[in-house]
Amino acid sequence: MATPEYTPFVFLLLLFQSSVWGFPVCQTPQESPTCGYKSCHATKPGMLNVHLVPHTHDDVGWLKTVDQYFYGDRNDIQHAGVQYILDSVVDQLLKNPDRRFIYVETAFFYRWWKQQTDDMQNTVKQLVNEGRLEFVNGGWCMSDEATTHYSAVIDQMTMGLRFLNDTFGHCGRPRVAWHIDPFGHAREHASMFAQMGYDGFFFGRLDYQDRNRRMVAREQEMLWRASESLTPPMADLFTGILPNGYNPPEGFCWDQSCDDPPIRDDPDLEDYNVDDVVTRFLHIAHGQALVYKTNHIIMTMGSDFQYENANLWYKNLDKLIRYVNQMQSNGSEVNVLYSTPSCYLQELHRANLTWPLKGDDFFPYADSAHDFWTGYFTSRPALKRYERISNSYLQTCKQLEVLGGPISRKGPFGAGDSETLKKAMAVAQHHDAVSGTEKQHVANDYARKLANGWAHCQVPTIYISLLSVSMFLCQFSVNVYNPLARPVSWPVRLPVNGTAYRISDAKGKAVDSQVVPVSQATAAVRRGRGYAVNELLFQVQAPPLGYSTYSVSLLQNGPPSPQSSPLPRAPKAVQNKFLRVTFDPETGLLSSLSNLETQQTVKLSQNFYWYNASDGNNSESIQMSGAYIFRPNTSTPFIISKTAKIETLQNSVVQEVRQWFSPWVSQVVRLYTDSRALELEWTVGPVPIGDDLGKEVISRLDSSINSSGVFYTDSNGREVLQRRKDYRPTWNLRQSEPIAGNYYPINSRAYIKDDKDQLTVVTDRSQGGGSIQDGSLEIMLHRRLLYDDVRGVGEPLNETSDIYPEGLVVRGRHLLSLSPPATAADTHRPLAQEVVLQPLITFTDGELHPSTRLEFSGLQAVLPPAVHLLTVSQWDQDTVLLRLEHQYQASEITHTLLSLGGDPSVWEVSLKPMEIRTFLLRVRQR
Amino acid sequence: MATPEYTPFVFLLLLFQSSVWGFPVCQTPQESPTCGYKSCHATKPGMLNVHLVPHTHDDVGWLKTVDQYFYGDRNDIQHAGVQYILDSVVDQLLKNPDRRFIYVETAFFYRWWKQQTDDMQNTVKQLVNEGRLEFVNGGWCMSDEATTHYSAVIDQMTMGLRFLNDTFGHCGRPRVAWHIDPFGHAREHASMFAQMGYDGFFFGRLDYQDRNRRMVAREQEMLWRASESLTPPMADLFTGILPNGYNPPEGFCWDQSCDDPPIRDDPDLEDYNVDDVVTRFLHIAHGQALVYKTNHIIMTMGSDFQYENANLWYKNLDKLIRYVNQMQSNGSEVNVLYSTPSCYLQELHRANLTWPLKGDDFFPYADSAHDFWTGYFTSRPALKRYERISNSYLQTCKQLEVLGGPISRKGPFGAGDSETLKKAMAVAQHHDAVSGTEKQHVANDYARKLANGWAHCQVPTIYISLLSVSMFLCQFSVNVYNPLARPVSWPVRLPVNGTAYRISDAKGKAVDSQVVPVSQATAAVRRGRGYAVNELLFQVQAPPLGYSTYSVSLLQNGPPSPQSSPLPRAPKAVQNKFLRVTFDPETGLLSSLSNLETQQTVKLSQNFYWYNASDGNNSESIQMSGAYIFRPNTSTPFIISKTAKIETLQNSVVQEVRQWFSPWVSQVVRLYTDSRALELEWTVGPVPIGDDLGKEVISRLDSSINSSGVFYTDSNGREVLQRRKDYRPTWNLRQSEPIAGNYYPINSRAYIKDDKDQLTVVTDRSQGGGSIQDGSLEIMLHRRLLYDDVRGVGEPLNETSDIYPEGLVVRGRHLLSLSPPATAADTHRPLAQEVVLQPLITFTDGELHPSTRLEFSGLQAVLPPAVHLLTVSQWDQDTVLLRLEHQYQASEITHTLLSLGGDPSVWEVSLKPMEIRTFLLRVRQR
Repeated sequence: MATPEYTPFVFLLLLFQSSVWGFPVCQTPQESPTCGYKSCHATKPGMLNVHLVPHTHDDVGWLKTVDQYFYGDRNDIQHAGVQYILDSVVDQLLKNPDRRFIYVETAFFYRWWKQQTDDMQNTVKQLVNEGRLEFVNGGWCMSDEATTHYSAVIDQMTMGLRFLNDTFGHCGRPRVAWHIDPFGHAREHASMFAQMGYDGFFFGRLDYQDRNRRMVAREQEMLWRASESLTPPMADLFTGILPNGYNPPEGFCWDQSCDDPPIRDDPDLEDYNVDDVVTRFLHIAHGQALVYKTNHIIMTMGSDFQYENANLWYKNLDKLIRYVNQMQSNGSEVNVLYSTPSCYLQELHRANLTWPLKGDDFFPYADSAHDFWTGYFTSRPALKRYERISNSYLQTCKQLEVLGGPISRKGPFGAGDSETLKKAMAVAQHHDAVSGTEKQHVANDYARKLANGWAHCQVPTIYISLLSVSMFLCQFSVNVYNPLARPVSWPVRLPVNGTAYRISDAKGKAVDSQVVPVSQATAAVRRGRGYAVNELLFQVQAPPLGYSTYSVSLLQNGPPSPQSSPLPRAPKAVQNKFLRVTFDPETGLLSSLSNLETQQTVKLSQNFYWYNASDGNNSESIQMSGAYIFRPNTSTPFIISKTAKIETLQNSVVQEVRQWFSPWVSQVVRLYTDSRALELEWTVGPVPIGDDLGKEVISRLDSSINSSGVFYTDSNGREVLQRRKDYRPTWNLRQSEPIAGNYYPINSRAYIKDDKDQLTVVTDRSQGGGSIQDGSLEIMLHRRLLYDDVRGVGEPLNETSDIYPEGLVVRGRHLLSLSPPATAADTHRPLAQEVVLQPLITFTDGELHPSTRLEFSGLQAVLPPAVHLLTVSQWDQDTVLLRLEHQYQASEITHTLLSLGGDPSVWEVSLKPMEIRTFLLRVRQR
Repeated sequence: MATPEYTPFVFLLLLFQSSVWGFPVCQTPQESPTCGYKSCHATKPGMLNVHLVPHTHDDVGWLKTVDQYFYGDRNDIQHAGVQYILDSVVDQLLKNPDRRFIYVETAFFYRWWKQQTDDMQNTVKQLVNEGRLEFVNGGWCMSDEATTHYSAVIDQMTMGLRFLNDTFGHCGRPRVAWHIDPFGHAREHASMFAQMGYDGFFFGRLDYQDRNRRMVAREQEMLWRASESLTPPMADLFTGILPNGYNPPEGFCWDQSCDDPPIRDDPDLEDYNVDDVVTRFLHIAHGQALVYKTNHIIMTMGSDFQYENANLWYKNLDKLIRYVNQMQSNGSEVNVLYSTPSCYLQELHRANLTWPLKGDDFFPYADSAHDFWTGYFTSRPALKRYERISNSYLQTCKQLEVLGGPISRKGPFGAGDSETLKKAMAVAQHHDAVSGTEKQHVANDYARKLANGWAHCQVPTIYISLLSVSMFLCQFSVNVYNPLARPVSWPVRLPVNGTAYRISDAKGKAVDSQVVPVSQATAAVRRGRGYAVNELLFQVQAPPLGYSTYSVSLLQNGPPSPQSSPLPRAPKAVQNKFLRVTFDPETGLLSSLSNLETQQTVKLSQNFYWYNASDGNNSESIQMSGAYIFRPNTSTPFIISKTAKIETLQNSVVQEVRQWFSPWVSQVVRLYTDSRALELEWTVGPVPIGDDLGKEVISRLDSSINSSGVFYTDSNGREVLQRRKDYRPTWNLRQSEPIAGNYYPINSRAYIKDDKDQLTVVTDRSQGGGSIQDGSLEIMLHRRLLYDDVRGVGEPLNETSDIYPEGLVVRGRHLLSLSPPATAADTHRPLAQEVVLQPLITFTDGELHPSTRLEFSGLQAVLPPAVHLLTVSQWDQDTVLLRLEHQYQASEITHTLLSLGGDPSVWEVSLKPMEIRTFLLRVRQR
């Protein structure tokens, strides 16, 4: 097989820029539909208007897989069948034109839609055009906010919104973002929603103290200024907190899954209860009006997977509206109506009030004093990593589809393309997917879906499994594809059985390489997945949006030469031209880190600890640690070992200090010759539970930095927020969990700093972490728990599998850099980018055909360092979607406006800090 | 208030006779609908045709009250809402004209119907006219078969069928009787169904041994010859046993209440399972075909309260039919279709086979070796009695409406009429109502409904509460209404506080009376309901279908005279002109009974015992006694006391021997001066449970009659069946429960006999009983149990209430007669009739107006003794429903044809033994 003929990618024509990503500027509708704000029912100005919003919350996987939920399979686990929900809601909407319904999760709607007849599709279009069925949010799923990366969130939103636009046009466009279930809310999500053009945002969960204060102050509705960099109102988003999470008020749940009394309005039958129902409803409405500002209130009439039999809801809601409004003739001043979030929002807008301003985010989320939902920041670390590298792979796959042209989407093995992986990644963004809060079998399903997506991307990339090739071949080539818009240098580690190889780059130049024995920890991680005894190390370079090919030939089989074997002793120091690291000879632990370029040094030690997960028994509340909740039994973690057993490996490519702390915790401290970052490659697992103690394992850095109770974390991989210990910017915190209550999500990086030094850790996946002591930064790596935390998942988070029957082993990397605060972003921004969009390594057996092009770049010129090529993706036959992003915050740079000139200069793009701009380009193959 | 002007009731014009009771000869339908057999889908002759019958089984009360079930209230107890079922089924039938549904319980359908719009009613009529919605059974409820009386069953069937006829005409007529849930099947029910004109009968439950034999022999479908008296085919009924009770085959339940996998036929989604579903279905169909005779099989696709969201069922059934029939192109010979029981029946008819004949009944029902459903024959004895006297009251109420004319239905207190009691009685016939197998709160609701029905009947009858009048009045009149078509004499017992009264009859003649002190047992039963200290006893007479009025004046207040007090000793004998009873002076128990007219004597003792209800712990199976199931822990009952404490009361009206066996068991052995029956008035309760033993209390008669293992019980109050110990007529019984397996329902009488003597016991309600030893007859009176018997009711049968906080006290009567077997019916038939339709006693304060008519009969002549006037009821403005019945079996009389001549002789009615004939009469008030 030959490498496909990639074609340089040139922007030829800017079609249009869209304010909503993936939602092109709306076409003029063919008819004049009365959807959107025009379709709202009239309200009564002098009265308290109660907006009843019928809705269903359909998790795109949680206790069941997404397809089990769609079909209503495995109802023994949970009664839920989305196909029936949509069937039933459409039927019931047709029975009364006053009725309204909102639908949220396009992953489900899409499945349903493609099974419908033309007649049914036309009926649904009619309902949408009349505003009776309205889409809100409208992404493929309702993404998690704590553990997702913005690039994957944008992709999943694009997929959902595009489907709605393609299917329904103007009237399918959601006006409102609707994150009623995610467990805390990221500022970056609000920023993205604002930039996507949503008019408002509603959610259900926030800290109980925050809610209480906001209720008293009537500040449950606010303006969220969701970026410190973007010029207002670019990232301003009206944000409302729903009154009952997303549930109906107590006593008014008429779903088949509820037991509240139906309205019994036949006086001939027993227990006529209309008066009772009306009285209770008025009481609740008046009570709710006290904690909101306007004479409009919203009630979410629905919940998880409700409306499977929508008749129950609507029949009783029809009666409720009739009987409550009948009371107006007796002087009642309450007016009830079918409504939608956008109709409610319209009335808030008409109220013409000034709303309180919100600048930070809604993390962490606690629903009670000892119930901090900060465990899921780390839960299922292997799934979190798999999701992250799948994103990288998907971006590459999409780029290659564009560069390779149509032929790359029609492989010999079927219609291979990126659609499968796009959908798998889109559902993986769900707030019970990458969050790690799903049941084990569902986590397995997400992973299976991703793997299936990878398989479908093999056709464009001619991927050949790493393990099946490099281990046994004597002659092969390594293709390194770089999805970034700037050249990268990247260390490659290949499992091999030989001891010496000759490597040459695309220009035929020899490349330095080393063969070292596989470490015990690596063998443990790879258990059952290959038996290579050595690793071949070398550094590769690849051009922007392109590849470079390296040839590898075996020189010698056998054990590695003695000088390539690690030595059983700690070095005093390890260093390259950028960094120097010292170790404590007594303990084998890190003792300092120096930046040789800036001549700065900090004391730095690092070790592993575990918190004993509360089992709920010996504490003042019965909350246990679980998939969602982190609740350590004590605030002092247990050290795994004060000292580490050490081996040192030093050669021309890499220097490694290998540390063993216990049979289940080890680490490689690694410094590549060309790297500005120190790599800590940790390996944790199987976490032992023979002592019947659940464990939450952290890596903790302790430094001499005077961090003054403050540390910083990124939001969804983009803007960074300041975190202050035992403090929340918008209310007077009563801290009740000194550890869990100070944990925040880390999506790509966290740092501590003082005037002089900033120590930044770039992570390879989302994790939770905190800074409990000054100068200290801890990151939770792995969790193994023995109890369910009673938030619904119904399983302890105790990951085992056929491959890991004794418990999951997880490996990951923390990349450490030390810089002056002012210039730290110059290191950690590109560093994180390289981790998020890593090169794709593929292999070809034997010698390449002499005509094979060994190096290629899709860009005519490297983009400026501040510009990130976020997305290149085929949009349709003739069009390519392009997203460009300014990857620095305003505070991280000096020049805030950045211009890109086209060549020929047909177009010019300006980017301000943190701005993302989306283009649809008509392309011509040159 | 005056007694209403009752008018003599004269038959003037016979309108028409109907073969279906309550279902007048069908009018010619206005359009030519394709309902009934014409609407059946075509089948495929060479194939195995699988008739899928979508259905719901909607209990008219069980775990919830009938109205809770209708509305879907108290879904915390059981998820069930019939209003939604009918909503949903109609919606779904409209979606595909191939779909079919059957509906059974008119009590629910009627409630739903009257809430529908005209449009919806027209839509439903259309579905009925096209045979897409078909009524089966069609009574107000699906009556119990073991504990109901035929007259109440006929009434409830009439009410349901009439509604269907009035509403839907021809196409509303059920063709098939459908008793899928009752716990055993009475021959009299089959006889009634045959006479009502049903073409066939299907049920679900029968003895597990019986079913096994019938499966092997392919005898699950048969011809039931349901009367020994009626000339075939008058009581012949094709009867089929359904394959899975009334449930769908395993793995094919697609209701919202089930967890079976839906058909996942989208190959793009996970777990495409069409092949698996089809394979499993074909396997089940072929297996089922092996145990039935034709190439047609039926599958009931539904269960309890299913189809609330009919879309789930139909969506998957549509797919099942499509995919299974698609296999025909691959050689499959299975054809699946939507069908109904009548369509299935039509195919069986076309098969033109000879079916096995069945002559006995399907009692008792056991679903496993130690699981005999013979407890409910007695469960809730107070409710069973209340239902029985309510029937008597209803018949009287209906007669008085006819006799009183329109004015009697428009009382000063509102539209008082019999409708409310008719409906209350109709739902009380349900197989979880009078059966006693409902939850306590539901039993309370049935009783409340009956009481409400009584209250609505007060207007026509000017009923004045017995206790509120006779206790305190010095002058009042007693009106005795006799609902029978022959004169009756009846002992009256009124609670009074005076000691002497003067009583005169309608002609002014003095009537002998006695005042006796209230017994302790009576005071206990009446707890909280009155404080009269004495009882006034006298005998009254009333003319046929008419009344007689007695005047009562107080002569003296104070304690009864000493001679009227009972004496603390046992008499040697008690006798009147018909009977003589002796007592054992040692024990105080009965020792013999003699018929002085026929000069026959048997040894006869009687005592009370209790079985220790199994708690399931110390036995080979874990079955407990409960509301349904009788399972004694040992086969020998515990005696309550070997001796009785005795008091004797003898006066000119009555002779009583009062027996005390324990604080919770007593009895009055009573002989009225004019009676041919010895009355045993038993009082049982509160049954003690301080010993943690559930108790099932029996009264046992032990006689010298050589009964040879045989005894006799009636079926629903009509024909009598022979019962042989440890024997079933149609299969080789392996007896596994020597007591419970020999219990049978006694609705109105049981007897033992030999060549010379027949000892008959007439009961005042339905009870269970058996003859375990020769000459012995035991009847279960009361049950108090500590465990649920896991048949769904979820409560132990442990009746307590505010009035009886320590447990229910129950009183009842057994009427004993001794006769030669050949003439025994001459005594027990009229005796049982007088118990079933007892006189109604009402009171008027003070002296009556001189013009008041003191005596009245609605009949010009007494009907012959064999003819029972079963029903007289206003049918509509101008029409009266009349039912005449031959009340003897063929074996009980010599002349089998009986003719009634009209006067003037416009009409003549012939009645054969056990025949019931129904007439609609146009009446004119004379």
